[in-house]
Amino acid sequence: MEKTIIKEKMKPELKEPVLIEGLPGLGMVGRIATRYLIKQLKAKKLAELYSPHFPYYVLVNKKGSVRLLRGEFYFWKNETGENDLILLTGDHQAQTIEGQYDVASCILDFAEKYGVKTAVTIGGYRKEAEETPKVVAVSTNPKLLKKAFQAEAVASPAGNPIVGTAGLLLGLARFRNIDALCLLGETCGYLLDPKAAKSVLSVLQKILTLKVNLSGLEGEIKKSNEIVEKMREIEERREAYTQKIRQMEEERITYIS
Amino acid sequence: MEKTIIKEKMKPELKEPVLIEGLPGLGMVGRIATRYLIKQLKAKKLAELYSPHFPYYVLVNKKGSVRLLRGEFYFWKNETGENDLILLTGDHQAQTIEGQYDVASCILDFAEKYGVKTAVTIGGYRKEAEETPKVVAVSTNPKLLKKAFQAEAVASPAGNPIVGTAGLLLGLARFRNIDALCLLGETCGYLLDPKAAKSVLSVLQKILTLKVNLSGLEGEIKKSNEIVEKMREIEERREAYTQKIRQMEEERITYIS
Amino acid sequence: MEKTIIKEKMKPELKEPVLIEGLPGLGMVGRIATRYLIKQLKAKKLAELYSPHFPYYVLVNKKGSVRLLRGEFYFWKNETGENDLILLTGDHQAQTIEGQYDVASCILDFAEKYGVKTAVTIGGYRKEAEETPKVVAVSTNPKLLKKAFQAEAVASPAGNPIVGTAGLLLGLARFRNIDALCLLGETCGYLLDPKAAKSVLSVLQKILTLKVNLSGLEGEIKKSNEIVEKMREIEERREAYTQKIRQMEEERITYIS
Amino acid sequence: MEKTIIKEKMKPELKEPVLIEGLPGLGMVGRIATRYLIKQLKAKKLAELYSPHFPYYVLVNKKGSVRLLRGEFYFWKNETGENDLILLTGDHQAQTIEGQYDVASCILDFAEKYGVKTAVTIGGYRKEAEETPKVVAVSTNPKLLKKAFQAEAVASPAGNPIVGTAGLLLGLARFRNIDALCLLGETCGYLLDPKAAKSVLSVLQKILTLKVNLSGLEGEIKKSNEIVEKMREIEERREAYTQKIRQMEEERITYIS
Repeated sequence: MEKTIIKEKMKPELKEPVLIEGLPGLGMVGRIATRYLIKQLKAKKLAELYSPHFPYYVLVNKKGSVRLLRGEFYFWKNETGENDLILLTGDHQAQTIEGQYDVASCILDFAEKYGVKTAVTIGGYRKEAEETPKVVAVSTNPKLLKKAFQAEAVASPAGNPIVGTAGLLLGLARFRNIDALCLLGETCGYLLDPKAAKSVLSVLQKILTLKVNLSGLEGEIKKSNEIVEKMREIEERREAYTQKIRQMEEERITYIS
Repeated sequence: MEKTIIKEKMKPELKEPVLIEGLPGLGMVGRIATRYLIKQLKAKKLAELYSPHFPYYVLVNKKGSVRLLRGEFYFWKNETGENDLILLTGDHQAQTIEGQYDVASCILDFAEKYGVKTAVTIGGYRKEAEETPKVVAVSTNPKLLKKAFQAEAVASPAGNPIVGTAGLLLGLARFRNIDALCLLGETCGYLLDPKAAKSVLSVLQKILTLKVNLSGLEGEIKKSNEIVEKMREIEERREAYTQKIRQMEEERITYIS
Repeated sequence: MEKTIIKEKMKPELKEPVLIEGLPGLGMVGRIATRYLIKQLKAKKLAELYSPHFPYYVLVNKKGSVRLLRGEFYFWKNETGENDLILLTGDHQAQTIEGQYDVASCILDFAEKYGVKTAVTIGGYRKEAEETPKVVAVSTNPKLLKKAFQAEAVASPAGNPIVGTAGLLLGLARFRNIDALCLLGETCGYLLDPKAAKSVLSVLQKILTLKVNLSGLEGEIKKSNEIVEKMREIEERREAYTQKIRQMEEERITYIS
Repeated sequence: MEKTIIKEKMKPELKEPVLIEGLPGLGMVGRIATRYLIKQLKAKKLAELYSPHFPYYVLVNKKGSVRLLRGEFYFWKNETGENDLILLTGDHQAQTIEGQYDVASCILDFAEKYGVKTAVTIGGYRKEAEETPKVVAVSTNPKLLKKAFQAEAVASPAGNPIVGTAGLLLGLARFRNIDALCLLGETCGYLLDPKAAKSVLSVLQKILTLKVNLSGLEGEIKKSNEIVEKMREIEERREAYTQKIRQMEEERITYIS
């Protein structure tokens, strides 16, 4: 495999599809949100993306089979609304600079083939989040950005870098006939942050006038809260201990000198 | 040399050949096992694989000659059974991400040319092994996996990553008409682990109904055990020493403060 | 995006244009100088350079839009003098070895298209600078170098390496019909050094017989001086503190032993 | 510049030329030896090799001009003997794995164009050398190796890796109609080791029946000896100091506990 390739599983007719992308990244916000959508909408597998820029290992599944790391495209037929959806998630981001640009370009090539005019990318935004994490929005198109603000997203500080596929898709979309929006859920960046994913999905729903029940994320949020709580406790104990050691050292120095 | 190339030495007719791959990796399990098979079966050199993704040095041999790092394909005519064998071992794995994918693809191209329908890759599995190391099996084909379990291999935990050529060959085999099995011998990962290699070979023999005398590995196992024993002793002494120093430090702090 | 590309915004007729390049580097000297020139001359956007060798993130602007990292070409019509100008600045340098050579080659391809015969690159030269930083000059052409010396630039020590685009453009210009000059402002290398940029611009003006008011840089220089002063203070305090700790430690050792 | 290129300066007719390569490496042995030969033989510039795999900086020369890093081919017309010489030295080795293979291939392409049938590469061999450093020889051709042994070179231990262009040229020569010999001068690996270079040249002379006065290297050897002596002194003093500190620490611990 010398190049990034996309293996198509089906060739459905799609109605003005919107691309939604959520690959692994900060707090896994994009991946959690997109996977949840795929599950709730019962979206069907559309294609798989393989790349020599992904890490060179395979994953074992429950049945003892293995597969390459990959991206997965799903599609969802929107019976009541205007836009069908193409949803992209996956195992990993590309590992090299040139690979990141290559994979993002391949994704847009594929989206264009299905006539995608709008793309939404999802990621995390590092910030000690409040009870309900805010959602930061940026876009290549002012109208799309306005829609996001109406759906209660907030503006990004200027100069903020958006790293990886979620950012590059917006940057490269400019060279194509695609408007792109990026939604970033505030997250302290712990391994998994379903709360930030929920915030993003509630904004995304309003923008796309979807109706997805988000209560299924509550269980994951509770679990993740417990883990964060436990990590904080450990951190505090460690801090207290370090403090004490330092104090002892200082007393000793004072004593001696 | 801009691309990975395969130099063929002979062009034998092979009967439904099975590819067996064992390149250097964890505990050198794959390489030790495959080289032992080649030696015992008196397999003949079939081809050599050279790649600009291998490290950029050459090796000096006993006669003062040198050669590039390479992979080596051997073949064995199976007089009594159904499948001839193609065996692949070598000096090194590819050094870059893209190189790993490239080399694995070239190996499969070559295997397809000889009509290979089944491939077995061999590697190590990091685990404090018991007296007789277990062999972990995964496969792209449930029947092949069942055969491995019947030969006393055990299942892999889900999510386990298989790194390098042994893994990628399975991942990429899916895109070809090749079923692939990976056998990983449990190893603590020390430099050389012939015991794990022996475990893998005893499973492999049952699967392929080969008859290879494995007692020739006993000498190597004994030697390797002695080395491991010595390394443990050193480790223990180092640990005891560190312990003592720490204790002295603590006593001093207590004394002073 | 597999290759470095240049998107042209306009196709003006340019009169024997001189290329001036200042990308981010030591003390940001090149970028500050070139951006200041662009602003003062009210130069117009000519083209944008995008490359898969730039870092893989996008930047958010004030309006909540985003864009890829890029280089920007501007042009200025010189009503009174002989040479129009093409000015190049940007967000970043290429991140890989091969990318550096590729981007520099693309810049020269573009310059040749407009008939550029002379190029000036701008950067920083690491040296504790005096009140007015000197400007070090090197060139592929002795006449151009002489002009720089007449404009009060000084010679570079032999063997000095010039890293990145500012250097490679000179190296690669030799293979084309382009004479190139590099002007390096002495800088201690702090984040931003507008004083070094001012020195470079005052030399550049004389060489190109431009008339640009440089007093607009004074505000930036004052700000940057304050930052440097503050950093020195912090450094001194830190040093004094470290000194004291060491002294206490030594006294303790002497006391104990 | 996307590829390694060779710019030819002259197109002389050469009589069964032998290629001699000495790029920077361990102790700079290859480069010192080859440059000395070029100077003594008054060899003429034949061609220059440029590559996007070299580091991305340019070097300033004495006249304030700059140039890309490069390899330099020289040629020498052997009036009395059978073989003319092509000599290759340069500023740097390629910086990436794939670049190393690419540059070595380009060198051999160029050598083949001139009908080179024999190549000699020169490098350093890390070993605390005796008064007169030995020269280790390996070759792709037993006859050539025997010639080297007759010229007082010694055999290499098996398994010894030869890193970089000096090694790859031998490895890749096998695929061409070129016999190659590698001569490695024993060196402790300090920055510059003209003594090792002298040893190599005295072996090389016998093999090629050249007559080059090597006394010109004596000055450089003396200078380098002085530097090595000074570095050893510094090292010893540092060692003594570290020893003393450690002793004091131990006494203190003993005292306290």
